[in-house]
Amino acid sequence: MAEIRQNSRDFLPEPALRRLPWYLAYVNLLSARAVDYVSSTQIAKALSIDASQIAKDLSFLNIKGKTRIGYEVASLKSELEYFLGFGEQHNAVMVGVGSLGAALIRDTGLSHYGLNIVAGFDISPEVVGTSINGVPIYDISELETRRPRLKAEIGIVAVPIESAQETADQLVASGIKALWNFTPFRIRVAADIVIQNTSIYSHLAVMYNRLGLVAQQD
Amino acid sequence: MAEIRQNSRDFLPEPALRRLPWYLAYVNLLSARAVDYVSSTQIAKALSIDASQIAKDLSFLNIKGKTRIGYEVASLKSELEYFLGFGEQHNAVMVGVGSLGAALIRDTGLSHYGLNIVAGFDISPEVVGTSINGVPIYDISELETRRPRLKAEIGIVAVPIESAQETADQLVASGIKALWNFTPFRIRVAADIVIQNTSIYSHLAVMYNRLGLVAQQD
Repeated sequence: MAEIRQNSRDFLPEPALRRLPWYLAYVNLLSARAVDYVSSTQIAKALSIDASQIAKDLSFLNIKGKTRIGYEVASLKSELEYFLGFGEQHNAVMVGVGSLGAALIRDTGLSHYGLNIVAGFDISPEVVGTSINGVPIYDISELETRRPRLKAEIGIVAVPIESAQETADQLVASGIKALWNFTPFRIRVAADIVIQNTSIYSHLAVMYNRLGLVAQQD
Repeated sequence: MAEIRQNSRDFLPEPALRRLPWYLAYVNLLSARAVDYVSSTQIAKALSIDASQIAKDLSFLNIKGKTRIGYEVASLKSELEYFLGFGEQHNAVMVGVGSLGAALIRDTGLSHYGLNIVAGFDISPEVVGTSINGVPIYDISELETRRPRLKAEIGIVAVPIESAQETADQLVASGIKALWNFTPFRIRVAADIVIQNTSIYSHLAVMYNRLGLVAQQD
């Protein structure tokens, strides 16, 4: 059974993977409301996503909906959590403990989604040697020796843009397998390194631009 | 001139708008290194983006590159900043001052990208009446009366998923024109409301899944 599950994870394309958290959020809502069953049509209506798309996305999971009843909410919730990896703990190190890096370490909500920030690294003598929410901050020069002991496979990049590429290279050299880039800099990595860019600045740019257009219409 | 600029903002499609911050980050880097000119070929090489794509994206801006020299770095930087709206201040209110909301208020880096969080709103008596980094936290019931005086057009949603849709509706009712959704819930709004979803949980899901595949190969 474990093997089938592990294999089935392989087949999930990124767009589907990106939609699953929406379904989980909705299913959590239903669970809190003590709803027992939900159909893909209901999910489609609630989330404004095509029902056939939802049925297709959910077909990657090890769960079958019943005709005219739909999916059992509790099973769907646990399958989605399993599939998304939110139920497991994934160790991560934060590089750059400035304003954003420190904020992310303080955001305990991330631990509910399986992210366990075990250490921070920085160059500033002001933060090196301190701790934030119990997370120790080390000098960046200690990354290579400490990373394996920390059992961290994810490196979060929250440094100034000038240091983004160098930081990414250091993280990869230390054995990190996945990079979560919070800088607006487009980091380049080898094909075997997982990279996700959380482009908060792009989102701001789109909002400002569209708001400007709204203002023009008024 | 102002009119031409304002008009030219209209034409920018979202994918192009999402790439511009990458160019700005790179141009900032060049500026710090006292580089005077840059070609789209150079940008393409540094960012691993097709050069013709870059030239096309930059053609939306009011800047012309010179043959064999390229773009003037200082002009490109200021045009990108203008175009992205990072040089202006955009007032925003934060709804939900829990772990993530408070962290975002503390992230002073956002102000360098034109975001000015002027107030927080929450339901918890523990935070209402306090302030974070000088930003006052009010009761959510005061949103409708306070929003116009705060001159905020952007509402940041950082509440639990159960309250995400209701919060969005309240923000829109109070006169907010753009929503920045940090919850994993898929919020529905009328077509004239700008919405941007920063899906940090989707990014985590993609990383965990791909890391699982790497582990399988080992």
